[in-house]
Amino acid sequence: MAAAEFWYEFASTYSYPAAMRVASLAESRGVALVWRPFLLGPILADYGWRDSPFNIYPAKGRYMWRDMERICGALELPLRRPEPFPQNSLLAARVALALGDGTRADFSRRVYAAEFGEGRPIADRSAIASLLAELGLDPDAVLSRAEDAANKAALKAETARAASLGIVGAPCLLTEDGEVFWGNDRLEQGLDWAASAGLRTLAGNA
Amino acid sequence: MAAAEFWYEFASTYSYPAAMRVASLAESRGVALVWRPFLLGPILADYGWRDSPFNIYPAKGRYMWRDMERICGALELPLRRPEPFPQNSLLAARVALALGDGTRADFSRRVYAAEFGEGRPIADRSAIASLLAELGLDPDAVLSRAEDAANKAALKAETARAASLGIVGAPCLLTEDGEVFWGNDRLEQGLDWAASAGLRTLAGNA
Repeated sequence: MAAAEFWYEFASTYSYPAAMRVASLAESRGVALVWRPFLLGPILADYGWRDSPFNIYPAKGRYMWRDMERICGALELPLRRPEPFPQNSLLAARVALALGDGTRADFSRRVYAAEFGEGRPIADRSAIASLLAELGLDPDAVLSRAEDAANKAALKAETARAASLGIVGAPCLLTEDGEVFWGNDRLEQGLDWAASAGLRTLAGNA
Repeated sequence: MAAAEFWYEFASTYSYPAAMRVASLAESRGVALVWRPFLLGPILADYGWRDSPFNIYPAKGRYMWRDMERICGALELPLRRPEPFPQNSLLAARVALALGDGTRADFSRRVYAAEFGEGRPIADRSAIASLLAELGLDPDAVLSRAEDAANKAALKAETARAASLGIVGAPCLLTEDGEVFWGNDRLEQGLDWAASAGLRTLAGNA
């Protein structure tokens, strides 16, 4: 089966519609998806950016928010800007990584819906705990796993891997043959590539 | 008839496939297209960037060139990086603006094909003169119009207008109702919007 990795950042606006769309787009192409949360902050810090580029460059920010309105409008997704923007995404990313593959996608979509659909803060423990409880998970147990040293180190390693893969923004799709497709608007292209890469592998094995 | 403006910069890589695609995409949707060359440099200079962001941020540059290979490959367009990159696009933009609507699109496509299809420099008078001659135009007459004070001032005004419209990169599509769609990968979305904006106007007039 063809496979692809979905790399996403909880502070990233465009990761919100992407997270809501990507599972069904992958399924319709027969592509198995791995959800890989990471932190974009350290990568942007290497560019000298200590804040969202959408705040540093206000014209880009105005463009992005209008673009998000159009995108979410077409998808019939609610859109509300959280304050402050961007939200600190460290805890959400640690929790997502600590969850198994089965619940990671559900938790991630729930975080995005709260953050950008309802404009709720997602940075602190109580916010994350209540989202975990809504999903029927045990907040204390999950938060304890999320904040143990091994999981913290694992998230750092994921972020370093993202940088080494050439991931320069979020969201990105990574195919099995190492292609990176950046942007919510490139999910279809990346998944089409992933599906045909899977076919090329099958042909090579035959 | 619905209409849209295609804002493009001759130094911009993604403007190359966009320029090659946009006329047929617009025609198939019944959208009349106005070609509007401008200079992105002054807009990027406001962000503190004195070079292409693809040079300032090498990881973004590596991503962009690989992305261009995939895009041009799918369109069966040749791709060759000009040296230096980016090319100084001032003269090409002045010439494109000085040409009438009938020849501006042809000249613009010819510049992009030379610059990014063949990797030829497009910055100096002799390069532009030979492209004009290939199109059956009188290079001396066109260059003289391009470099008169009124045309130079007109290009400055176009660039200022681009900034005031919220254009933050190239290429962009601008619809009659003031929506900006940034990127080669947004041409279809922008032209669909332009076509339905035209329908909304018709309905309002009926």
